Amino acid sequence: MKHLVVASVPAPGGTIPLSGSDAHYLLQVRRLRRGDFLDCTDGRGRVCRALVSAVTGEGLVLTVQEILGDAPRREGASEASPGGAPLEVLVPLLKGKLFDRVLRQVTELGADRIVPVVTRHCVKRPPREQAELRKKNQRWETIIREACQQSGRRCLPELALAQELPALSGQGPGIVFHELASRGLSREAVAGLWAGGGPRRVLTGPEGGLSSGEVSDLAGRGWLVSSLPTPVLRAETAAVAGLAIVLHLQSELDLPSRS
Amino acid sequence: MKHLVVASVPAPGGTIPLSGSDAHYLLQVRRLRRGDFLDCTDGRGRVCRALVSAVTGEGLVLTVQEILGDAPRREGASEASPGGAPLEVLVPLLKGKLFDRVLRQVTELGADRIVPVVTRHCVKRPPREQAELRKKNQRWETIIREACQQSGRRCLPELALAQELPALSGQGPGIVFHELASRGLSREAVAGLWAGGGPRRVLTGPEGGLSSGEVSDLAGRGWLVSSLPTPVLRAETAAVAGLAIVLHLQSELDLPSRS
Repeated sequence: MKHLVVASVPAPGGTIPLSGSDAHYLLQVRRLRRGDFLDCTDGRGRVCRALVSAVTGEGLVLTVQEILGDAPRREGASEASPGGAPLEVLVPLLKGKLFDRVLRQVTELGADRIVPVVTRHCVKRPPREQAELRKKNQRWETIIREACQQSGRRCLPELALAQELPALSGQGPGIVFHELASRGLSREAVAGLWAGGGPRRVLTGPEGGLSSGEVSDLAGRGWLVSSLPTPVLRAETAAVAGLAIVLHLQSELDLPSRS
Repeated sequence: MKHLVVASVPAPGGTIPLSGSDAHYLLQVRRLRRGDFLDCTDGRGRVCRALVSAVTGEGLVLTVQEILGDAPRREGASEASPGGAPLEVLVPLLKGKLFDRVLRQVTELGADRIVPVVTRHCVKRPPREQAELRKKNQRWETIIREACQQSGRRCLPELALAQELPALSGQGPGIVFHELASRGLSREAVAGLWAGGGPRRVLTGPEGGLSSGEVSDLAGRGWLVSSLPTPVLRAETAAVAGLAIVLHLQSELDLPSRS
């Protein structure tokens, strides 16, 4: 764990009380003791070094020693690329542990917003009840938080509620990877798409693939339909490979304006 | 499953007898019956369409109907990029199921040769006995075969026995991703490295990362030390993201010579 995500990071001298599973992890697994140090972030860009100042029956108390960084992500900006708009990753619902894994990996890679997407061939459907949907998101948020703690990301990506693809496709164009596309993603095409501003959207297919109707609908709405270097990939691999390629091109494009 | 990997693909009219786990999978899981069709490859580039011509007590018999493709990978060439040298992916040994997963994903992505690598900070060590090492490779070969069957790759990548990094680093330069590198991978740098011919090697770090000594040793031997767009990634994510970026650049570079 690079740092702990806490509710808020007070000024130096302020305290952060911890109980429950965080306290259990720090005391039993990490074996922290009074006098040990630990870095914390509020998940919005503020990071501190904290001292374990007390271990109590219920948990432990951290005292903030020093603010290591305080650069909250600006509204409409990206954590990974200060020169760019936020990166929105559309992840199709996948069976079992696959979705959890992709969620963890796109968080690590630097998604600013993650949208679980229901497409025509999705084997997995989201729960119908709003309450169930929120409960599911709470579990996913725990996975995202752990991924941030492990990779040292300062800002927690936002997690949207699961949405149907047609509703999403009209919100503005993005990049969609599809095995039948005739060409790979070029820097020029990405630069052209992103010149319009707005969130930078990336979508890969679910286990059954995107339907040709879905892809032509996206293309009609200005989406860039691109192939991956390897045509047939499992959904899990395509999500990580596609995002990595987009991030690579983004780092080339944003380079001059990078802070 | 896109196709079944079999020991050999005979000419049309020839038969392929199947028993054991393959027969079980096809009959019980896929529920194939006499008269059904199935594609097969010999894992060396020859692919056929076959008919289930008999179901016996021990398994089933396929009869080859048609050769769909017969393009064996040339010695010293790549399956994914006919214009290029083979892609050799060096995967550090990882704990538990993580290595299996990376193995499956780099196979899908198109590695021509996979070398399990032992680095200084590898938590996982390979077995000392050669016999144990071979047994481990047999299990890994099963995973590779399944990944080929699922993704439709025609050629099985070669799997080397686990090797120590120092022994490998002298075999010729490659690309190594490391979080302390000052710049990302550029098309020009890759073109320069690959102009020398020989296998195209890619290496990412294990769970504990590559040591700075290991990285400077590689740099001294001509390896290209590059950063990934996201500096801190788990070993599993770095392996897939790094390979995806290399494949993207390769597809741009090999485009003119692609068949």
